[in-house]
Amino acid sequence: MRNIRQKLSIARGEQPAELVFKNARLVNVLSGEIHRANVAVDDGRIVGIGDYKGRKAIDLRGAYLAPSLIDGHFHVESSMLTAPEFARAVVPHGTGAVVIDPHEYANVLGLDGIRYVLESTKNLAVDFFIMLPSCVPATPLETAGARITADDLKLMIADERIAGVAELMNFPGVYLGAKSELAKIEVGKGKCIDGHAPGLRGEKLNAYVLAGVRSDHESTELDEAREKLRLGMHILLREGSTERNLAGLIPLINLHNAVNCSFATDDKLAGDLVSEGHIDHCVRRAIKLGLPPIAALQIATINTARHYRLRNFGAIAPRYWADFIVFDSLKNFSIRQVYKKGILVAEDGKFLARSPAAVPLPRSTMNLRYQARDLAVKVVRGKAIKIIEIVPQQIITKETLAAPKFADGEIVADVSRDILKLVVVERHRATGNVGVGFVRGFKLKDGAMGSTVAHDAHNVVVAGTNDTDILRVIEELERLQGGQVVVARGDVKAELGLPIAGLVSDQPLNEVMRRIDALNAAAHALGCDLDAPFMTLSFLSLSPIPQLKLTDQGLIDAVHLRKTTLFA
Amino acid sequence: MRNIRQKLSIARGEQPAELVFKNARLVNVLSGEIHRANVAVDDGRIVGIGDYKGRKAIDLRGAYLAPSLIDGHFHVESSMLTAPEFARAVVPHGTGAVVIDPHEYANVLGLDGIRYVLESTKNLAVDFFIMLPSCVPATPLETAGARITADDLKLMIADERIAGVAELMNFPGVYLGAKSELAKIEVGKGKCIDGHAPGLRGEKLNAYVLAGVRSDHESTELDEAREKLRLGMHILLREGSTERNLAGLIPLINLHNAVNCSFATDDKLAGDLVSEGHIDHCVRRAIKLGLPPIAALQIATINTARHYRLRNFGAIAPRYWADFIVFDSLKNFSIRQVYKKGILVAEDGKFLARSPAAVPLPRSTMNLRYQARDLAVKVVRGKAIKIIEIVPQQIITKETLAAPKFADGEIVADVSRDILKLVVVERHRATGNVGVGFVRGFKLKDGAMGSTVAHDAHNVVVAGTNDTDILRVIEELERLQGGQVVVARGDVKAELGLPIAGLVSDQPLNEVMRRIDALNAAAHALGCDLDAPFMTLSFLSLSPIPQLKLTDQGLIDAVHLRKTTLFA
Repeated sequence: MRNIRQKLSIARGEQPAELVFKNARLVNVLSGEIHRANVAVDDGRIVGIGDYKGRKAIDLRGAYLAPSLIDGHFHVESSMLTAPEFARAVVPHGTGAVVIDPHEYANVLGLDGIRYVLESTKNLAVDFFIMLPSCVPATPLETAGARITADDLKLMIADERIAGVAELMNFPGVYLGAKSELAKIEVGKGKCIDGHAPGLRGEKLNAYVLAGVRSDHESTELDEAREKLRLGMHILLREGSTERNLAGLIPLINLHNAVNCSFATDDKLAGDLVSEGHIDHCVRRAIKLGLPPIAALQIATINTARHYRLRNFGAIAPRYWADFIVFDSLKNFSIRQVYKKGILVAEDGKFLARSPAAVPLPRSTMNLRYQARDLAVKVVRGKAIKIIEIVPQQIITKETLAAPKFADGEIVADVSRDILKLVVVERHRATGNVGVGFVRGFKLKDGAMGSTVAHDAHNVVVAGTNDTDILRVIEELERLQGGQVVVARGDVKAELGLPIAGLVSDQPLNEVMRRIDALNAAAHALGCDLDAPFMTLSFLSLSPIPQLKLTDQGLIDAVHLRKTTLFA
Repeated sequence: MRNIRQKLSIARGEQPAELVFKNARLVNVLSGEIHRANVAVDDGRIVGIGDYKGRKAIDLRGAYLAPSLIDGHFHVESSMLTAPEFARAVVPHGTGAVVIDPHEYANVLGLDGIRYVLESTKNLAVDFFIMLPSCVPATPLETAGARITADDLKLMIADERIAGVAELMNFPGVYLGAKSELAKIEVGKGKCIDGHAPGLRGEKLNAYVLAGVRSDHESTELDEAREKLRLGMHILLREGSTERNLAGLIPLINLHNAVNCSFATDDKLAGDLVSEGHIDHCVRRAIKLGLPPIAALQIATINTARHYRLRNFGAIAPRYWADFIVFDSLKNFSIRQVYKKGILVAEDGKFLARSPAAVPLPRSTMNLRYQARDLAVKVVRGKAIKIIEIVPQQIITKETLAAPKFADGEIVADVSRDILKLVVVERHRATGNVGVGFVRGFKLKDGAMGSTVAHDAHNVVVAGTNDTDILRVIEELERLQGGQVVVARGDVKAELGLPIAGLVSDQPLNEVMRRIDALNAAAHALGCDLDAPFMTLSFLSLSPIPQLKLTDQGLIDAVHLRKTTLFA
């Protein structure tokens, strides 16, 4: 602790603190009470609670003072924002710290991606703690930009801001005892080991926990979450843009087990963060659903700080960082002021912190090799084709069969039956891999839309009504060095450049939100009626999630995790 | 984890476990429920909870199965038992782990004492975790056998069984920012830093916490404990042989803060451990005082394991050690069976574990240099003398004045007024230091009693009615290589040898208890009416505790922490 003797002298009351918060209604997440208090702050830390004098005083006049909120599991790339712009979105909502898994950066850039994240998340109005991505690539059925092994993780685990090993998505590998996965758990010894086991129950779940996994954020059913909690997993109650499990899981919580719960968002879009909120939204929901406010705030603060061992975060007590939120009502829980290390960083929804100097951006990640004829699908007479059927609001797909439409000896999109062509072009190492398939659910009547955000390998994925527009999308994405684009009849209708790893914009929050709105509007104008067409598109390559997917390596039977053919 | 693949296979249900506990009413301290379950155990660990098959099955027929109990703060020397004999006393009471502070061993033997403790506490039916003694010697006003600095602690802190830095009793040193004390806290970074701050409140308490101290076991008043809890201290609810704070502190606990509480005994005599119990006694008391049983059992298990980071202790879940207690009623909480790593180690109060091979004992610690004439107090006419006045049941003393009794030009004991001579002889390094004073409260009519257990420096302390018997006591203690003795008219009436550091017996539990009873009976036969005469005697040298004490360096004004004179 910097200047410890000076701070001790202030704590002893021998000299005034830099700042005193007076007449607070303190939400004490340690003693589990709300009590009146004055809080003395110096040099970013809380030095004392009591009758202190300050060179400056802030009279809270009985407003609530609570520790800033903490997100237990988030992929910051899902916001498509740089860390400083993400801070701009969430700090006004009271977020003081986030535990992130830079899984997407790692898939594109490997360790360089994690290093960029470590650098670019420093000195902000939100503190970032990083879990090391454990499943890169997700499967061998897609070509990612990097491969990360236990030895790679070892190189980085010691960093103070590395909180552990991120979600072990290869849960069969773990419960079957694969050497590679057990080695990753071994690397995280003494830090946290996060799980990711949707629907895993019974004996396999026991084995997964036995291997050393101690958290999960994938429970969608109450019984599933209860089983995980009983087996000793820390339960992250997820409430993101699409995955909304909070209401379903709240009945799990009793006052004897709340300590084993945290809030998390996992993936949340910039617009949702701004308009709906972040962890403050979880607290509001939880209180509305009947959780005692103190428990909700413990889940949003100290429980997460303790689980992830975020030293001196998550509570208001001497030595802790002076990260506070101020609000007037536990009922509507609308945050009025946010302090980071004693400095006012947001007020009435307005972000007030200064941005730090920019850090160097990572290298270009758009290395394409393809030709127009790669998109062609030659006719095979008398055979039906497999169609990837979108399930709205979900990341699973269904496989259906359809008779193909022919033109000039090729199988083409058929807008009358909502069958679009889907193309995935490998973009990391110019392998020349191009996967082609067909998808139903976008309802585009014209044009094409494409993205370099395409889980988990983040190759170029394009859905379109014709090859010309599909090629135009790919060209434009290459020019942007990554991004999202809507094209119709050769014209770019809307676009968002994502030059940072092809995942994240270099533009300010408002500009990103404006362009996302324009992209959605353009897709809708072409006939699409999905809520979030680009999010849907970005999950069509995710090979571990059933039922039928398309990667740069071709059509994937995502149930049996193997390649399959277009023709039934 | 040993044979992890084998265990994973068992967890997956592919092969039977070594042992299955069937039809348990599982006290799940993680999910905060009691639910029916079968628990599979293999190679000492829990491998699964569910419908498992075992090569052996134990049908609990609906009995409660809970994790074994944990003591958060204990000085094992206070039992005067070796670790194996201590295990014999507490395992039938359900104790599975203890966090100990070998403060007395360290005062006598320094780092060698801690090394002996590390060695002698291995492979027992109780797991020992060790906090490194932080205040050796207690003050410069007594001559201990060793001095331990932050550099010494650094040598040992990395050991897996070292849980942190023990009670920082020099709390003024800490809150005033003394370099030596802050350095000790720095050594414990990443592990636990225990506090010890009786009565400390307000600004000084804030400074103490700010310095990095994160627990306390010295609260005797509810308000004091609440203040400490609010400032972020983990509260150890102490219930020892003499210090009994549990009932007073129970009202502190609500279900939002129970996680920040543990049970602890601090100091407890062998006989009390056997007859009254250990942490099971705390659980019984807490339940009787109205605490929900689940909260009481969480405080007795997982809360302590988490605070002290005892990995895989304190809960019943996969990967945790199979440390269980079995009992039939939450109301009387009488423990029927105790399992350590899946092995039955106690049943119906009977200890069943085998003792491991003995470890080498530490070196002799009785290095005396004294002469009969050192005990003489020459007459100074016309002056009253200061008397150490015993306060029954407490470790504080009072200072009173009395006119001395003379004989042959010396000041002597006066049994008619209950004024005995008190002698302290340095025993560690043969300095020749002998302190002589007078004490009231023992009520011996004849003879003398002495001990080499004499906090914190553990020199020889003897109270007696005449010099001949006092000398006889010292001789006998030297012959025993440490111990406790009652002598009358030259005859040894009762004795307990404590050859291990002059603190601990090398005899079995029953023999130690028998001899302690005999010592007390002998003291009572000579007129003493104190409940625990040797415990009272052992605190008369403790220089930091007010008001008047005697060390080898002479009479100590323990309020102002300085030497003082016998004559008023």
